[in-house]
Amino acid sequence: MDNNIFIGNKPFMNYVTGVVMQFTTKNSPEVVIKARGKFISRAVDVAEVSAKRFLDNTVSVKDIKIDSEGFQNKEGRDVRVSIIEITLGKNQ
Amino acid sequence: MDNNIFIGNKPFMNYVTGVVMQFTTKNSPEVVIKARGKFISRAVDVAEVSAKRFLDNTVSVKDIKIDSEGFQNKEGRDVRVSIIEITLGKNQ
Repeated sequence: MDNNIFIGNKPFMNYVTGVVMQFTTKNSPEVVIKARGKFISRAVDVAEVSAKRFLDNTVSVKDIKIDSEGFQNKEGRDVRVSIIEITLGKNQ
Repeated sequence: MDNNIFIGNKPFMNYVTGVVMQFTTKNSPEVVIKARGKFISRAVDVAEVSAKRFLDNTVSVKDIKIDSEGFQNKEGRDVRVSIIEITLGKNQ
C-alpha cells in the first residue's frame, strides 16, 4: 500500500485530506509526506495541520529526513534541489 | 555562545557563511538553523549546502524538529505558522 503523499501546488487542503484519510479510512500506521524545493515549507504545514488540528494529536512526527539531489536542468547546468521526508505515525 | 542562525530574506550565502564560520572560526560543535513559514525551504537549502558543499561532510544533520505557533495577526485573527529547527553537528 502506498502511504506516500507528495506535496505540490494543488490546493492545501487536498494534501491534508490525503494524510487524514490514510490514517482513518485506510488505517495506515504511518504516512510519509515528501516534498522538494520550495514545497518543503508546505510539507511542514501539511504535517502540522494534519497532526494537530485534524488528527488531534493521535498522530505525531516519528522521523524527519532532509537530503539533496543534483540533476541537470534544461540548459544543461548542474543544479541541486533539497528534499524533505516527514514520517507521521499513530501514537501507541 | 549563540550558535543559532535564523533564516530570513538576506542573500542566501550570508546564511551559509554564518553556519560555516560557526564551525570553523568559532569552533562550535553544533549549529542550530531556525526558520518559520516560507523560510523553512530555505533553511533546508542552507543546511544542505553548508554541510555537503562547504564543510565537505565533516558536519551532518543531528536532529530536525518541526512545530507550529499560534498568534494573532494585525487584524486580530488567529493564525498558525510552522517552525523548523535543524541541528548540524561535527562528525566524531
